[in-house]
Amino acid sequence: MQAASTVTFERLKAFIHKAMTKLGLPNDDAMTVATLMAQADLQGSDGHGVSRLPQYARRIRAKGFNVKPNIRLVQEHLSTALINGDNGMGHLVMSRAAEIAIEKASVTGIGWVSSQYSNHAGPASLYAKMPLARDMIGLYFAVGNANHLPPWGGLDMLLSTNPIAAAIPAGAEKPIVLDMATTVAAYGKVKTKALRGEMMPEGWMIDREGKPLTDPKRAEEGMLLPLGGMEAGYKGFGLAMIIGLIAGTLGGAAMGKDVIDFNHDDDSVTNTGQAICAINVSAFGDVDTFKSAVDTIIRDIRGSQRMPGVERITLPGERSEATRLARAKDGIPIAPALMRALDQLAGELGIAKLG
Amino acid sequence: MQAASTVTFERLKAFIHKAMTKLGLPNDDAMTVATLMAQADLQGSDGHGVSRLPQYARRIRAKGFNVKPNIRLVQEHLSTALINGDNGMGHLVMSRAAEIAIEKASVTGIGWVSSQYSNHAGPASLYAKMPLARDMIGLYFAVGNANHLPPWGGLDMLLSTNPIAAAIPAGAEKPIVLDMATTVAAYGKVKTKALRGEMMPEGWMIDREGKPLTDPKRAEEGMLLPLGGMEAGYKGFGLAMIIGLIAGTLGGAAMGKDVIDFNHDDDSVTNTGQAICAINVSAFGDVDTFKSAVDTIIRDIRGSQRMPGVERITLPGERSEATRLARAKDGIPIAPALMRALDQLAGELGIAKLG
Repeated sequence: MQAASTVTFERLKAFIHKAMTKLGLPNDDAMTVATLMAQADLQGSDGHGVSRLPQYARRIRAKGFNVKPNIRLVQEHLSTALINGDNGMGHLVMSRAAEIAIEKASVTGIGWVSSQYSNHAGPASLYAKMPLARDMIGLYFAVGNANHLPPWGGLDMLLSTNPIAAAIPAGAEKPIVLDMATTVAAYGKVKTKALRGEMMPEGWMIDREGKPLTDPKRAEEGMLLPLGGMEAGYKGFGLAMIIGLIAGTLGGAAMGKDVIDFNHDDDSVTNTGQAICAINVSAFGDVDTFKSAVDTIIRDIRGSQRMPGVERITLPGERSEATRLARAKDGIPIAPALMRALDQLAGELGIAKLG
Repeated sequence: MQAASTVTFERLKAFIHKAMTKLGLPNDDAMTVATLMAQADLQGSDGHGVSRLPQYARRIRAKGFNVKPNIRLVQEHLSTALINGDNGMGHLVMSRAAEIAIEKASVTGIGWVSSQYSNHAGPASLYAKMPLARDMIGLYFAVGNANHLPPWGGLDMLLSTNPIAAAIPAGAEKPIVLDMATTVAAYGKVKTKALRGEMMPEGWMIDREGKPLTDPKRAEEGMLLPLGGMEAGYKGFGLAMIIGLIAGTLGGAAMGKDVIDFNHDDDSVTNTGQAICAINVSAFGDVDTFKSAVDTIIRDIRGSQRMPGVERITLPGERSEATRLARAKDGIPIAPALMRALDQLAGELGIAKLG
């Protein structure tokens, strides 16, 4: 197999920015999207970064995304808001949502902003982390953009991998950052496996007979297993459903059979819903005391006696932070198949290639 | 095996009320606790209802619970509060917390109340459901009262089964109610198996060598597996940790190595932390429209094509609602071992037996 090329964060961001500008986004919006997408790749969220660019470009050219959205408040209360993304790119909608949630939390202790008519916004963790800079906890919930999960015991694809992300500020330690699909594996990981030509482990997907499905190229024939797998998958199903209801239905966004599979539909409005919640640590006590308590817990966990064969205990977010540092130094690997797709896109848009 | 006796909800509630009064709780508080505990049994949360009474009594007599707590606000903002439970019974603390959260949500759209110096409060779902009556969504997070979960890859018991519960109002359909430990099985279920003299299925617990542990009487030698099991247990570990941080650490309550194992310690202050969040549906749109959308999703899911061998698809909360209706009609079964323990307690307190 051909080795992956590597590019710097800045080069990747500039490439995405140029592509987005050519596709019609205003300069500042293109920069916001490019920064968030490149950050996704930098931190190792390979299924949610530049690998989505060809698809985004297809949707924009099919008028499936509005490149000049009027993102606006639909309802607002002291601690909540509902924003209509006007079918703009989700990155723009949820950056705005995070700002509003943080402002509200700074006044009332907590802010919750839901979106409607948003779109795919990349990795949940990017938004959950936004409140950290203000010493706030971030929680993020999203309705995924394709239903690959049936109800527990069912066959109809009525649910997506609806992710949850949470970010907790620490003191001397790095923040705790959880970002997880409510399936055993996120569908983005399946796509990444397919792009890399690798097989999936058993337990990620099953076919309609309930048998393990391990070839990511056959993903369309199967369904993801909810978190908990064959044993306790009703819990993952329950989480996916609750997250869909609070991230989608609550804000009047799509959920269940209304979800548009944006892998196969480039021009329908997805009416994607997400929700971000910012919780102001200072509304509950002294911020430094809290951070120091979080540090202690992190150190206790890291210092735990380990099971035989385990080299180190990893905190949520530690791996992506390590990837972020490593890729900032060594560059971001771009798999050959993806690079070919990006080269083709560059040709179509008349911009310089990334490679 | 001797068959279980059954008792009515009212009889069970009256028994607990009498016991709590004898143990020193004021009449109204005893009634609040008795109602919530009996509701736990009624809905099938057997590990969290009257089965805890002997232990609660032990703690009260050892002065491990404060029977006349001064439950008070420590910090308050427009949408958040931190309450100090003064080491009272958790049922009292979290009932109060739910009231405050609901009031705040009715004004600002969302309310979040965290507790410190609270105690075990029974099933998470009881509190998550409280906002339903006001057309609000309820979310509840708690730090469990005994650490049975090590970090992923570790052996030190630094985490509890930290549950999450969520309740979503519906229209003609029953509300969606999720209540789940972030382990494959809740520790209460392990205790119930032990009381019933049954074995656990593989996958609930492992021993310190990582081998399956199925005898609930040996539970002390093992540890629970986080949700996701051997395959994706890092997700359950991450959830347990995040919930511990937002339900415990945020409010200055115990988390990690500070958690008191109240199964083995009757007199230390547990400093239990819980958090309840009420989200006002009307702050995001028309309540009837929302409820009708939830109904549609429930019906779509229930009506899904089923996998071979699956008789019906169960929504989160449906099983406990069915149990509630069945037990309201047929009575609440009390296992022989539990009945013996309750008889003994009745004797000690000088009150009429339950059986």
